[in-house]
Order: sequence, then C-alpha cells, then structure tokens
Amino acid sequence: MTKNIFKGKVVTLNVETVTLPNGVTVDLETIRHPGAAAVVPMKDDGTVILIRQFRHAAGGFIYEIPAGKLNPGETPLACACRELEEEIGYRAGSFELLTSIFTAPGFADEVIHVYRATGLTPGRQQLDRDEVLEVIPLPLAEAVDMIADGRIRDAKTIVGLQSVYIMGKVG
Amino acid sequence: MTKNIFKGKVVTLNVETVTLPNGVTVDLETIRHPGAAAVVPMKDDGTVILIRQFRHAAGGFIYEIPAGKLNPGETPLACACRELEEEIGYRAGSFELLTSIFTAPGFADEVIHVYRATGLTPGRQQLDRDEVLEVIPLPLAEAVDMIADGRIRDAKTIVGLQSVYIMGKVG
Repeated sequence: MTKNIFKGKVVTLNVETVTLPNGVTVDLETIRHPGAAAVVPMKDDGTVILIRQFRHAAGGFIYEIPAGKLNPGETPLACACRELEEEIGYRAGSFELLTSIFTAPGFADEVIHVYRATGLTPGRQQLDRDEVLEVIPLPLAEAVDMIADGRIRDAKTIVGLQSVYIMGKVG
Repeated sequence: MTKNIFKGKVVTLNVETVTLPNGVTVDLETIRHPGAAAVVPMKDDGTVILIRQFRHAAGGFIYEIPAGKLNPGETPLACACRELEEEIGYRAGSFELLTSIFTAPGFADEVIHVYRATGLTPGRQQLDRDEVLEVIPLPLAEAVDMIADGRIRDAKTIVGLQSVYIMGKVG
C-alpha cells in the first residue's frame, strides 16, 4: 500500500507499506525521484572540468561534476549530453557509462548514471535561472587529492572521478 | 521561509524559500535527514566485509558497506562503531575517517561519514527487525572489480571501497 504525502517538482514522497523478505511488514518513507545523469568531462591532456555550484541543501557552494535530472522520456545519455553543454559549455565526441549509482537507497530510489565524456569541443553554456556555478578545470590527480583532503564531498562526483582515476591506473 | 510538509521517522520534507547568490528566489523541496555513518571493515589480509541488504527503494538486494543513521546526540564515530557490530558482528581496533559525503545535495542535506575500520575482532551481530542482510567477505580488488562491472551500485559503498583502494595504491 502506498500513501502519497507530497508530489513536487523534484521529489515525490510516499509512505509505503512493505512486507520484507523476512516477513516483517513496515512503513517506509520513500522518496521517488526521476533519476539523473552526471558527466566527468575529460580533456585529452587529463584535465577534468568540475563546477563549483551553490547547493542550498549542502549549505553553500560545493564541487561537483556537471549533472542534472532526467526530463520526462529523456534517456540518461541524452541527459548527460544536454547537461554537459548547458552547465559548462562543452560537447563531447564520446560518452562512456562508468556506473549507475543509488545515491541514498535507505530512503530514495534516485539513480544517477555517471558517464565519462571525451573528445570535448566548445558548445554553448546556458544556465537555468536557479543554477549558480563556476566552471573549474583541474588535473585529474589534483581532483583525486581534493577528495582525500575533504574539499570534494559530493558522492556522484567522487564516484566518477575515482572510477576514471582507477581505470587510468589499471587500463 | 520554511514550509514543513512532513516529519517522519527518517526524513523531514520542507519546501524552503531561498534567495540564491544570484538574487533569484526559488522554492526548494528539501529533505532534512539526521546524517549517517558507514564503515569499510578491512581485515589484515585485505579482505573487506560487505553486506547484501534488502532495500525497498532500490527494488531488491544490493551490496553495501555496514551503515546506519545517527541516533539523536550520537557522534558519527560512535554510530560507525555501533553499526559495525550490529550489522556484521565485528569490533574494530581503529577507525579512520575517509570522507564525509553529500549523497544527494540537489534535494537532501544527508551527510554520510565514511570510515575505514581495521584491527577487526569478533563481536555480536544484532539486527533490527527491519534489517534483512547477508554478510559477504571479499578481497578488496574483487570488490573494486564489482564496481566496474556494475554489481556494486551503492554510492557510499563505492566511495569507501575506491578511497581505500586508491590509498593502498598510493600510500
């Protein structure tokens, strides 16, 4: 049984009555989210292009990779292409899916599809009115250091940067 | 201005009216969450101890590291200790904070403090009635492969495992 509490522009909140595999029945506060795509934009010289974006829920500006919610009917790849150009003004010759992550499976069904984009060429940046961000190109190794020292704290961003870094070390 | 929509056992949902740094005022659907701690439990031989846990919001069982919400007044370290023992039945000689991540800063303030635990000794597993999970020890390198091939998809788990893996390669 699902009791809908709220249906907003971004999230839907339900209290869902669920019988677990052990037979116990519980009410679970569950956020339903359309999902998102995120992109590690990588230049041929190993520079990654981050953004520093204002996030109210995080209490200020945080480092992220370009990302955004899936529009209705939009594929994750189309969303990744769109957000890459809108947020940082680049197009990519190639997108490779790194992984699709559950961000907060204890209470939300959000999945973020995380891509690496290469073959970057200039496009046209076009921010929404509620997007406040600065574009920050950095060597990949420096970005990985910024994870270790706590300056980069966004989960999808860490997953994307570390995945690309490990692939580069192994492959 | 904050309009509270829902106050549950896990999440609080507000619609918060915010003036962004660019002067634009917007209503933001914001999940307030108490925060959590997560632990990469690592044996001396490089084995990491994962769990395979039922997560309704993820649609089934997923691989994770032990983790849980902060109780009121509980420090992240105390929470990490508690969840390590309750979920997998181990105590640790040493905890090291790897990073504190924002899981979904577009709509939630949840921070997960991710630790590495070493010096493991047997304790007493004690699951809540709504926890359905299996304990799965694995070599770290195999766990990292399971990220690359898409079998491990939980964000905090990927961040913890990849952080430990990169530290081991560099340090």
